[in-house]
Amino acid sequence: MDTTPRRTLRLAALMGSVALPLAFLAMPGYAQEKPKEHADGPAAAYEPSMTTLGKLKLEIPGRKPDDPVITPAEFDKAKQIYFERCAGCHGVLRKGATGKPLTTDITRERGYEALKDFITYGSPAGMPNWGTSGELSEAEVDLMARYILIEPPQPPEFGMEEMKKTWKVLIPVDQRPKKPENDLKRDNLFSVTLRDTGQIALIDGGTKKIVKVIDTGYAVHISRISASGRYLFVIGRDAKLDMIDLWMKEPSKVATVKIGSEARSVETSKMKGYEDKYAIAGSYWPPQYVIMDGDTLEPLKIKSTRGMIYDSQEFHPEPRVAAIVASHYRPEFIVNVKETGKVLLVDYSDIKNLNTTEIEAERFLHDGGFDSTKRYFLVAANARGKVAVIDTKEGKLTAVIETGGQTPHPGRGANLNHPKYGPVWVTSHLGDETVALIGTDPEGHPDQAWKVVQQLEALGGGSLFVKSHPKSDHLYVDAPLNPEAEISGSVAVFKVSELGGKEPKYKVLPIAEWAAIGEGQPRVVQGEYNQAGDEVWFSVWNSKDKTSAIVVVDDKTLKLKSVIKDPKLITPTGKFNVFNTRNDVY
Amino acid sequence: MDTTPRRTLRLAALMGSVALPLAFLAMPGYAQEKPKEHADGPAAAYEPSMTTLGKLKLEIPGRKPDDPVITPAEFDKAKQIYFERCAGCHGVLRKGATGKPLTTDITRERGYEALKDFITYGSPAGMPNWGTSGELSEAEVDLMARYILIEPPQPPEFGMEEMKKTWKVLIPVDQRPKKPENDLKRDNLFSVTLRDTGQIALIDGGTKKIVKVIDTGYAVHISRISASGRYLFVIGRDAKLDMIDLWMKEPSKVATVKIGSEARSVETSKMKGYEDKYAIAGSYWPPQYVIMDGDTLEPLKIKSTRGMIYDSQEFHPEPRVAAIVASHYRPEFIVNVKETGKVLLVDYSDIKNLNTTEIEAERFLHDGGFDSTKRYFLVAANARGKVAVIDTKEGKLTAVIETGGQTPHPGRGANLNHPKYGPVWVTSHLGDETVALIGTDPEGHPDQAWKVVQQLEALGGGSLFVKSHPKSDHLYVDAPLNPEAEISGSVAVFKVSELGGKEPKYKVLPIAEWAAIGEGQPRVVQGEYNQAGDEVWFSVWNSKDKTSAIVVVDDKTLKLKSVIKDPKLITPTGKFNVFNTRNDVY
Repeated sequence: MDTTPRRTLRLAALMGSVALPLAFLAMPGYAQEKPKEHADGPAAAYEPSMTTLGKLKLEIPGRKPDDPVITPAEFDKAKQIYFERCAGCHGVLRKGATGKPLTTDITRERGYEALKDFITYGSPAGMPNWGTSGELSEAEVDLMARYILIEPPQPPEFGMEEMKKTWKVLIPVDQRPKKPENDLKRDNLFSVTLRDTGQIALIDGGTKKIVKVIDTGYAVHISRISASGRYLFVIGRDAKLDMIDLWMKEPSKVATVKIGSEARSVETSKMKGYEDKYAIAGSYWPPQYVIMDGDTLEPLKIKSTRGMIYDSQEFHPEPRVAAIVASHYRPEFIVNVKETGKVLLVDYSDIKNLNTTEIEAERFLHDGGFDSTKRYFLVAANARGKVAVIDTKEGKLTAVIETGGQTPHPGRGANLNHPKYGPVWVTSHLGDETVALIGTDPEGHPDQAWKVVQQLEALGGGSLFVKSHPKSDHLYVDAPLNPEAEISGSVAVFKVSELGGKEPKYKVLPIAEWAAIGEGQPRVVQGEYNQAGDEVWFSVWNSKDKTSAIVVVDDKTLKLKSVIKDPKLITPTGKFNVFNTRNDVY
Repeated sequence: MDTTPRRTLRLAALMGSVALPLAFLAMPGYAQEKPKEHADGPAAAYEPSMTTLGKLKLEIPGRKPDDPVITPAEFDKAKQIYFERCAGCHGVLRKGATGKPLTTDITRERGYEALKDFITYGSPAGMPNWGTSGELSEAEVDLMARYILIEPPQPPEFGMEEMKKTWKVLIPVDQRPKKPENDLKRDNLFSVTLRDTGQIALIDGGTKKIVKVIDTGYAVHISRISASGRYLFVIGRDAKLDMIDLWMKEPSKVATVKIGSEARSVETSKMKGYEDKYAIAGSYWPPQYVIMDGDTLEPLKIKSTRGMIYDSQEFHPEPRVAAIVASHYRPEFIVNVKETGKVLLVDYSDIKNLNTTEIEAERFLHDGGFDSTKRYFLVAANARGKVAVIDTKEGKLTAVIETGGQTPHPGRGANLNHPKYGPVWVTSHLGDETVALIGTDPEGHPDQAWKVVQQLEALGGGSLFVKSHPKSDHLYVDAPLNPEAEISGSVAVFKVSELGGKEPKYKVLPIAEWAAIGEGQPRVVQGEYNQAGDEVWFSVWNSKDKTSAIVVVDDKTLKLKSVIKDPKLITPTGKFNVFNTRNDVY
């Protein structure tokens, strides 16, 4: 399978057929632009409820005798059910995301009866059958159908008071070690998300043994390391942020805080003079970020991201915070705001007089990383098929580039030294098999800078991550969301030194096969290098009740080096090598 | 009446008794902190409606058989009525302002029947009798009572699309004069708000004749002049912004735009290199500001002010934009956000990569002005009895000072050279007769800097404006909101050179008497100097159907110099001398 058949795959198709892996995505992070129509056929005519109430004595214009109605108490109850069951996919303001929009212009067109049926029976496109599954009673289904005919209320905020209530310093600073109290090679530790158990596993990069499994928030999205390498920060999708002290004899949580009801990102201050001083975390709901004390997670400053969409300049009530990285050129956090398409440079040198540069970039910013010089930050505007480039030294937009593929998903991307085009940064795509190489060297290669200089074709659509390393001659491309088991269980590897050739070929590594875990259809996801840059780790992510594994590949030979298996290694997904993560090596 | 009897007056008392002048205030700009209780006695027990519907077939927890209900169509109708009739006083989000808060925790405690009665019959405290006046039908009253038991929906936004629809260039730039085409002494023109007619009068400062009356938005809050002195900008409370070209043979509007549904502030760029380049206007609803082209009013960049309150760090959905001034030290606008207590330094040198410094100051920022060096900006946090000082050169908070009085209302304040304390900035108070003098010279008078160095007592509470001039030895203090006619029709004048004495006395100028307008009880408001700084103009503001006037006082002798009367001079309030306004002379 050293060929590259064109196997284009629309994200929409993926989303319909791949239920499990989608949960790995930043749910509901893959908002497309507002769908204008329902996928489920033309809207049903308005059919007033048969379950409604007697005749009205009042003649209010617009009231029909059998219109569904709602009381204040019902409204409150429905609001709570909506937030717990529906908001994750449909958005707290019902603007739609993974699920369809449920704004009143749409719900009223469909009508009460159609809504009730939909809630009761679900749909093959992914709507759960809340009624027939018994998770909602008949009365509750009726209530929810009536509720979504009324405009949504403002969902609960999560400000300083709420955060402070959840904030705990488990081990005060003065009771922590003054110097490292263990012999771990901390810079070669891997923090591995155990998605479904709400844990991370700390794995020793040398011995490949699990050092410790630590309870965290649910489905930890990323791990970040403080500039000194001492503190590990992990954030769950439930917005629970935990801080782990790697100096302790047995690395343990020292502080915890909940920063909202849904979150994805955390980072720490990296500028000289600010090492380990601040942490920052961004949330999906409420749409805001919070700057915290770097030793204790004490929330210090919360800033809302609600505001105008960069191009239409219409107000968006729910602009979610996607990736956050720390600048190497200024004392700034780089905060990506998804729906409004803005990149915020947040100066943390004086948080009482907070200076922010709000850069107009492109809608649906999601994830990204630095070029090899760490001056430029490249971030995918996923639903727009583009990558925005931010000059973190000058504090402004450098370029917006069409990637030529569908729904770029770089993770942090990969930096290669291309034999023809010099330094390039790479992203693969969720929606097709293409891999885009973007020139990042405006001085040495001005003609190639901020252009797609080469498009590769890898295994197929459904890719989440590419990976390389400054010492490596390889570029790895996964495809965990591809519906074909053979593809989602494999990884494509290109030889960087051969990319100057006509049609660069890739080698396929059958990672899932190498793991030999028997039962299940695991997906192979997210290559991560060790500190030395001579081996790459892949998660072989099986379902919760089946065996998963991590497969370690020798980067020189591309041979299997090791398989990590352990009963505790349940649903491993993202892996974060301490050294590479804190130094932005990728 | 050369004595200073202490005549303390609480703002609350003023608000109850003085209906007309309060309309002059930034309604609903004087939001106090959330009232915890109703003024109208203990909440009535919950009494379900007798007008409601049959029995429910469903058993939803919390539903009582006679609970009031609402349909989606009714909800929409009620939303519209609320926005038109109720939002002005109670706030679009029902958080309360001039009217009481109507959040559901409060409305549900009062209950349906009590609400219906209240809407029908009104209250002596100012709630209109919507039912008995016939402005709402019985069915509509019933609807509104039910509606406010349900949580409020998001009110209409006003983004770029809406603004662009209202934007008109009446005279294109290339059809405007290349040089001044009139012989007016433009720098000595006064732009006078004719409050109730929705106009401004341009009055010649030399001849005292009305040059022209120009239709504008309703109750123009302020006039501002472009750095060159050519363009006059006026903004109505209805958020209509008009731009007048003073170079035209007959000064006329050349562009207009509506920037929201309620607004107070406009300013233009003043830094070298940016003269006449940009205008900015801030709105109360939606809570945002907009940067516009300085020649055409084309809206370029809208920025929401929704965000966290500076101290509690809880989200506020409606942080209104109060005063805006242009920095003389940086290419920045200084934007004061009322409810969140933040001063924003908005860098207009690159609006695509918009840099903003958000300074934590104090809640309820309202109006203010520069010290005599124009480096420091002093702004009243009115409901907190404080003044915040911003260093516009360094871009940070310098101090927050208690003024010692109740509800400071400086307008732009007055700068004096105090015989003992050197440069001071002055504010009077709405809530009492005190006048606070604040030291503003940290280099020459470090012990006095950012302290109240002296407290004067003037005529009484209800003062809106103080006024002085670099060439004058006088400080004028008005009291237009004082309930006593003799006080509200007079102005107190202190001699600056005598302020070093033990108990400085003031002289009373009976301005309303001098105007000799006969009928009515006019209020004397807002002293404004001419360009030369040798005369002061006061508005003698009568009701719409009665004669008003402007009284001109000789600043040297404190004698009556001139009375301006004209049938077109209806309800004059604020006056803005072109030279003094554009150069921040006060």
